[in-house]
Amino acid sequence: MTQKCDDLGEREVVRRITKILGVSEKDDCAMAEDGERYLVWTTDMLHRKADFPGIATPWQIGWMTVAVNLSDVAAMGAVPLGLLVAAGIPPETDMSFVEEIFTGMKDCAHRFDTRVLGGDLDSHNELTLVGTALGWVEKDLALRRRGARPGDLLCTTGTLGSAGAGLRVALGAERKGETKRIEEDASLLALTKRLLEPAPRAKEGRALALSRSVTSMMDNSDGLALSLFDLAEASCVGFSVQEERIPIDPLVAEVAEDREDAVDLALTAGGDFELIFTVTPDRIEDAARACNFTVIGKALEEREIVIESEKVKKALEPRGYQHMSGFSEGKL
Amino acid sequence: MTQKCDDLGEREVVRRITKILGVSEKDDCAMAEDGERYLVWTTDMLHRKADFPGIATPWQIGWMTVAVNLSDVAAMGAVPLGLLVAAGIPPETDMSFVEEIFTGMKDCAHRFDTRVLGGDLDSHNELTLVGTALGWVEKDLALRRRGARPGDLLCTTGTLGSAGAGLRVALGAERKGETKRIEEDASLLALTKRLLEPAPRAKEGRALALSRSVTSMMDNSDGLALSLFDLAEASCVGFSVQEERIPIDPLVAEVAEDREDAVDLALTAGGDFELIFTVTPDRIEDAARACNFTVIGKALEEREIVIESEKVKKALEPRGYQHMSGFSEGKL
Repeated sequence: MTQKCDDLGEREVVRRITKILGVSEKDDCAMAEDGERYLVWTTDMLHRKADFPGIATPWQIGWMTVAVNLSDVAAMGAVPLGLLVAAGIPPETDMSFVEEIFTGMKDCAHRFDTRVLGGDLDSHNELTLVGTALGWVEKDLALRRRGARPGDLLCTTGTLGSAGAGLRVALGAERKGETKRIEEDASLLALTKRLLEPAPRAKEGRALALSRSVTSMMDNSDGLALSLFDLAEASCVGFSVQEERIPIDPLVAEVAEDREDAVDLALTAGGDFELIFTVTPDRIEDAARACNFTVIGKALEEREIVIESEKVKKALEPRGYQHMSGFSEGKL
Repeated sequence: MTQKCDDLGEREVVRRITKILGVSEKDDCAMAEDGERYLVWTTDMLHRKADFPGIATPWQIGWMTVAVNLSDVAAMGAVPLGLLVAAGIPPETDMSFVEEIFTGMKDCAHRFDTRVLGGDLDSHNELTLVGTALGWVEKDLALRRRGARPGDLLCTTGTLGSAGAGLRVALGAERKGETKRIEEDASLLALTKRLLEPAPRAKEGRALALSRSVTSMMDNSDGLALSLFDLAEASCVGFSVQEERIPIDPLVAEVAEDREDAVDLALTAGGDFELIFTVTPDRIEDAARACNFTVIGKALEEREIVIESEKVKKALEPRGYQHMSGFSEGKL
């Protein structure tokens, strides 16, 4: 009996592949021993249709390709060493479009003190960009998804929900043919920029590792909710999140239908590229010296993930960023 | 005025991109400084239609994806540290097909003492596999395309032309609907296996580096002729090749129309994944202790690339493996 990948679903496909490869632990990067340190590296395949809204400029497409990989390196507490890019480009593409893509890649890499060192160029029917980032981290400083202990404080850098709100703005404007309107509205423009020009938390990830106060970390590229499920599984803990503590980007209110919708965007929309991490309570001041962040909850002994507001405490659902296609975007 | 990529051609597209990125030298791998050694890494995008003949089994598709990247690591004289794979898979693909692909990857990596450490899974309209291999080499042992000096002996590992002959067999059998015939003929089967199950020269590349006798090296993935043009350009030398010394695989005669055609396959067909390198004449015995190879010519001061037979000496043309599409497969 044959089984199609899209009938099995992403998680099962990934589970079977990782079993074949003998990959036992899931982190933002793969790790290779290198004396006193780990080399960490990650790869991410992005497609024109599934990963980039129509309004994305080629420069933004290049920027995103580099940024998503640097975010994974940052989530390990590592220092980037460089990137490679394999680019599949439709032959009829304008050269100026291609040049803008690679300029965006270069600019993002430079912004975070690293470089695109090379790659591979290929012809493809759909624009396909595969970035690979390499970094290093001292063995005793490496931050992984496992390591959170019950009682640890749950934290996030930055604000949440704006990339999701930006995606809603972009898709809405494209549907109505009103993309010009975005450029004329500072708030809408800021939201879409948050989506299309993500700033990986490179400095913050490294500073948190050096603070030796963090017990587990990952980026929230698929949204806060899914990230919590991943952290919980890797660390064998649960989490409770205080709803009113979630640092929702104020601009999200311009797009969200109501407070509930804004919370939903902050919880389930991907693309913010913030760091989600846990801190030993008595080291919280060391963490606070490393960078700005918000404590949004704590790790639990019980294997449950709950969100608490003034009124109610309820189980968080594992909903998050999904590609358009049947299965996709699974870290091996 | 807009210019399309396929009007500009691969070389010009690559030239413009590398200029943007500031990538000044072309080698089989990108290099990053790491104390006393270099980290070397490479990425290669492969597609179902352009890179894998129809007769390729999923296991062979996986094997090839890993092998082509390990060949690049070998060409630097480096030791592999591991691989990542980004896989774009059509959702309607049978899971067993996917499992065979990843088993082929695992088997190839294990065969060459390394591992696939992780990757990214994505949905794509065409099967797209992007392997990335990481390795290391001592700074004073790293082998690059530059370094050949006039008078150096030009060498190749193994035999040439069989992958090209195998491709001819595969395409011919597919066209005629006679792929069954390949399985019944030991010679045809051996030729197609040479194409579909390439064995990167990992041991040889490393041994040659350790011999300290080699002045320049690359793999011949795009065919001997194009490799010579690349080595010549990087090293600022020319080459003369003795036609009768080219180690053509004896099986090539079963497919080639005549001797001239066999030489042409050995010169211009890609996929053999042998190492092409130059050796200082007085160190040739050190090189010979490292591994088996054949001296096929020598480096020249004149910037010409010529092939000499008993009868005639003529300029070698820069013809070689080309993908089906307008521009493709350019190392950045």
